[in-house]
Amino acid sequence: MVKQARAVRTRRAVLEAAAHVIGSRGYQAATMAEIIQRAGVTKGAVYFHFTSKDALARAVITEQVDPFLPQTSASRLQDAIDFTHRVALALRSDPLLQAGTRIAVETTFSEEPLLPYQAWTDIITSLFTEARANGELLAAVVPERAAEFFVAAYMGVQLFSCAATNRADLPNRVTTLWKHTLPGLASPGALSHLDPQGRRVQIVV
Amino acid sequence: MVKQARAVRTRRAVLEAAAHVIGSRGYQAATMAEIIQRAGVTKGAVYFHFTSKDALARAVITEQVDPFLPQTSASRLQDAIDFTHRVALALRSDPLLQAGTRIAVETTFSEEPLLPYQAWTDIITSLFTEARANGELLAAVVPERAAEFFVAAYMGVQLFSCAATNRADLPNRVTTLWKHTLPGLASPGALSHLDPQGRRVQIVV
Repeated sequence: MVKQARAVRTRRAVLEAAAHVIGSRGYQAATMAEIIQRAGVTKGAVYFHFTSKDALARAVITEQVDPFLPQTSASRLQDAIDFTHRVALALRSDPLLQAGTRIAVETTFSEEPLLPYQAWTDIITSLFTEARANGELLAAVVPERAAEFFVAAYMGVQLFSCAATNRADLPNRVTTLWKHTLPGLASPGALSHLDPQGRRVQIVV
Repeated sequence: MVKQARAVRTRRAVLEAAAHVIGSRGYQAATMAEIIQRAGVTKGAVYFHFTSKDALARAVITEQVDPFLPQTSASRLQDAIDFTHRVALALRSDPLLQAGTRIAVETTFSEEPLLPYQAWTDIITSLFTEARANGELLAAVVPERAAEFFVAAYMGVQLFSCAATNRADLPNRVTTLWKHTLPGLASPGALSHLDPQGRRVQIVV
């Protein structure tokens, strides 16, 4: 048991070290040597958990999403808004999220170039699909296509914010993103009840 | 005169070589040696025109915008739509535009990180400002902020399209971008006259 707990801690330390190095240098420029040094563990321990930089990047992409399951309230569009605001706040300090954006813009997986976007697109697609069932979406909106558009636009907004203020203004820019996209997404009845700034506290209406 | 024409051609060859190398490898990974080799000119000729990689990146950013002045018709929002579609078509093959996106996402100019976005934001801001004077914008829209949002979203959409299809589907994704953002930008009277696919031929209404 003690051994297993230590293995979990080591794996996490390596993953976070990889995220730090990729997040600051980019995926191409990151080296296993630097990741090993930053993790403060042996080379053998690193390769026990991750056989390559590619395997590390896949783990970063998969596990970055885990802490961010959307909440469930009466409005699935509001849940989507709140979800993107929680991610925006976390993007300012979470090394896995920051590394995920570098992996996405460098098109790291040439065989599956959309992999870094996939989990986010899936979450937004399912929120929009449930919003459709709720009567919250405009008739012309196609949930899958709207979700791909939204995730792409969000990526651009966080890149711009990263350049402008190192993401300090990202929450405001995410609010602006929703202000500009909700009129093309939400049915008139839903629109007036939505808060593009996100709800600070979860309220189940 | 002959000498001057040759200097102009050499400068252009160097600029396009730099754009090719930066566009395929990224700005950080691009080297002056590779740019010089690709341009097929002497090292002295390159340094006569551009003293550093930084100077080359600045020239790429400044000169990429030159061929894309928006047209002027009765609808400034339609002019903005058409403008972004012309850029989308060109992005599929124009090395300067492709290099410009790499320079932007790598935050190449640490002192002026928004420089790669600036010319685009200025053009969209002035189109939205004139659209406001035309009565085409919703009352709540702030042209500068809307333009920054739009340019950021456009960057994300082109990155996503680059990953998905090497930009083959970019025109469709730009249409989707406008379909999703026009309802939050255009006044009801203007909205019904706008074509988010862009006009193939310039029509002055």
